[in-house]
Amino acid sequence: MTQATPTRLLWRDVTVFDGLATRPESMAVIVEGERIARLIPMPQLDAELAHGCRDMGRGGVMTPGLVDCHTHIVFGGGRAGEFEARLEGASYEEIARRGGGILSTVAATREADEDALFAAALPRLEAMLADGATTVEIKSGYGLTVADELKMLRVARRLGEALPVRVVTTLLGAHALPPEYRDAPDAYIDLVCEAMIPAAAAEGLADAVDVFCETIAFSVAQCERVFQAAKAHGLPIKAHAEQLSNLGGSAMAARHGALSADHVEYLDEAGVQAMREAGSVAVILPGAYHTLHETQAPPIAALRRAGVPMAVATDANPGSSPLFMPTLMLNLACTLFRLTPSEALAGMTAHGAAALGLGELGRLAEGAPADLCVWNLDAPAELAYAVQPGRLRQRVFQGAISHDI
Amino acid sequence: MTQATPTRLLWRDVTVFDGLATRPESMAVIVEGERIARLIPMPQLDAELAHGCRDMGRGGVMTPGLVDCHTHIVFGGGRAGEFEARLEGASYEEIARRGGGILSTVAATREADEDALFAAALPRLEAMLADGATTVEIKSGYGLTVADELKMLRVARRLGEALPVRVVTTLLGAHALPPEYRDAPDAYIDLVCEAMIPAAAAEGLADAVDVFCETIAFSVAQCERVFQAAKAHGLPIKAHAEQLSNLGGSAMAARHGALSADHVEYLDEAGVQAMREAGSVAVILPGAYHTLHETQAPPIAALRRAGVPMAVATDANPGSSPLFMPTLMLNLACTLFRLTPSEALAGMTAHGAAALGLGELGRLAEGAPADLCVWNLDAPAELAYAVQPGRLRQRVFQGAISHDI
Ligand SMILES: [Zn+2]
Ligand SMILES: [Zn+2]
Repeated sequence: MTQATPTRLLWRDVTVFDGLATRPESMAVIVEGERIARLIPMPQLDAELAHGCRDMGRGGVMTPGLVDCHTHIVFGGGRAGEFEARLEGASYEEIARRGGGILSTVAATREADEDALFAAALPRLEAMLADGATTVEIKSGYGLTVADELKMLRVARRLGEALPVRVVTTLLGAHALPPEYRDAPDAYIDLVCEAMIPAAAAEGLADAVDVFCETIAFSVAQCERVFQAAKAHGLPIKAHAEQLSNLGGSAMAARHGALSADHVEYLDEAGVQAMREAGSVAVILPGAYHTLHETQAPPIAALRRAGVPMAVATDANPGSSPLFMPTLMLNLACTLFRLTPSEALAGMTAHGAAALGLGELGRLAEGAPADLCVWNLDAPAELAYAVQPGRLRQRVFQGAISHDI
Repeated sequence: MTQATPTRLLWRDVTVFDGLATRPESMAVIVEGERIARLIPMPQLDAELAHGCRDMGRGGVMTPGLVDCHTHIVFGGGRAGEFEARLEGASYEEIARRGGGILSTVAATREADEDALFAAALPRLEAMLADGATTVEIKSGYGLTVADELKMLRVARRLGEALPVRVVTTLLGAHALPPEYRDAPDAYIDLVCEAMIPAAAAEGLADAVDVFCETIAFSVAQCERVFQAAKAHGLPIKAHAEQLSNLGGSAMAARHGALSADHVEYLDEAGVQAMREAGSVAVILPGAYHTLHETQAPPIAALRRAGVPMAVATDANPGSSPLFMPTLMLNLACTLFRLTPSEALAGMTAHGAAALGLGELGRLAEGAPADLCVWNLDAPAELAYAVQPGRLRQRVFQGAISHDI
């Protein structure tokens, strides 16, 4: 890994594609400072333009740096033992008795201090950077106390300071009901609204607020209260919704102007229309669908027809998606959900950025931020078609080279 | 990548597991020359044993080097365009008209010379080594002429000489019917039996002979002729069988003493019993199942009950499994086919080796060959549970360190 001082960087004959342009094109690209300065057909590159540029090589495919807009990579403990026990035939009761499930991650996360959580998350994030990510959202949601949720968010912020990546934090206090509130879910929602959100907002620790709207988590009415509190503190909102059943959480979130509704396997036409009207992004998470053997795919055709932007993300987490590889999600989105390779790529570039309220990111255009990947590929579709680690040739974050092989 | 001269290498406190031992154990491991010299509980490691050893570190999980016993990584061209066209709605007729499918790979492979095939395959193989492979089988089968099949096998041999990996070659002349034999499949089988096999045997280019026994490929009777020719030249045999339908190819192969039958989604109880009696390995290939959206899983419970060893492999190929990541297959085997993490690991260690007739490989024991991986993991099950590139800490091939981060 090398950290270069920003300068003028020049790529020649590189196939440029962000998933949104009509067709990949072979171009010359000049980065100056933190922006793409020129993006021109090769014949227009003359000696004057090239003068003083650092030669970054020729050929390959350039995409925006990948935007993974939905992850839970800060957590204590691990769930490989539970994964193994289940495959070895342990019943859900046995696993619960041994302390499995999300509450085991909550216990281990509460147990861990910031340094331990940081050390555990670092290699996960490094793996994602080596696979092309330049922006990674990280949620809280395994602390479920004010102190532990803030601890998780602080670790997320530290990760963004330690590595060359833009970390976007999301407070997900309403992820699961903690054991101490087992019989008082509304009292827990009070805690989220009256203590967690104000504290996270006061410390500037959360860039957005998320909820898990599901029969096994929180009701639409409870989630709506969380959104009202978030908005009162000026924080954007998003929702895990319609993953396992159709409660109407996505439509409610859209009515509140949510940046995104995530999972959306059970989204109905009314939900699609509500998202379209609100401009919310549908975040497609094939990793959980794969891991949980779901059979209900999100309504891709309806979303496409309505023009609802679709993001694609890893949902990287210890339970339902222990998959720390953004490009694998491009393959899964195409293979499991029939997205086209271009749609999948746009889902991890511009639409992923939109799901985070970072509309400027994820595009290849003159003046756009220089978060870039150059891949050892002949065509952009290969990124979704093949799963093959190590194809990233160069990674540029904010105009600086952070990976160059 | 460092190439060390063989010496005494010592690991301390490493969790040692090959998928077959009852439970992972924390051990001290000493490698001397090309073998595991000592594999002992930590308390037995004394100063005398440790004297003169190179310190290889402490902690982590040690497994045998992974054995990927079924790949097609030597090929010309690529099929990302076809993958994309299909997802963009092109019909099979359109794709065939554009020259898609396996015959497009045959055309591109015939077109390419040895150097071009070598250059294209090298990064695929490098990716697999970086993911822990120390033995990789490579099949021919996209040449379908004597010269082009031998060309593919020569490239496979060259790959094994260029990189620190044991390449095992398989002649798969009976992979598909070449266009010039469209109306004369038996005449093509004559060519395989009377020209390809003898030529490959004479040049020592093939370690085994494989067939594709399927309605869309070759009949049981045609495959049996290939096996007879192979055996006449002293070559072991294996079969792609029962992938899309139940023709009885696995049972026929077993009757001829096949090393393995591969895919076996449609294998019936008689086939399971025939394989058990013959000692054939069932090679489980979840990558093609995933890519082709198959719904018929192999009869894992019946194979387990009968004690038929199950290998797991990538089937890495440009059409039905463009997945060049061995550890991903551990995850897919568990998630899609409900193998346990231990079974999956054994499938890429000892049972993968058995499918290649290399019974000595794939075990962690004193005296066993020192093909080893050390992973940055706490427990072996994490290898199947999480998909995360970059977890390989050290890779030892024939006693020499070929990867050390
Ligand atoms: Zn999530
Ligand atoms: Zn195959």
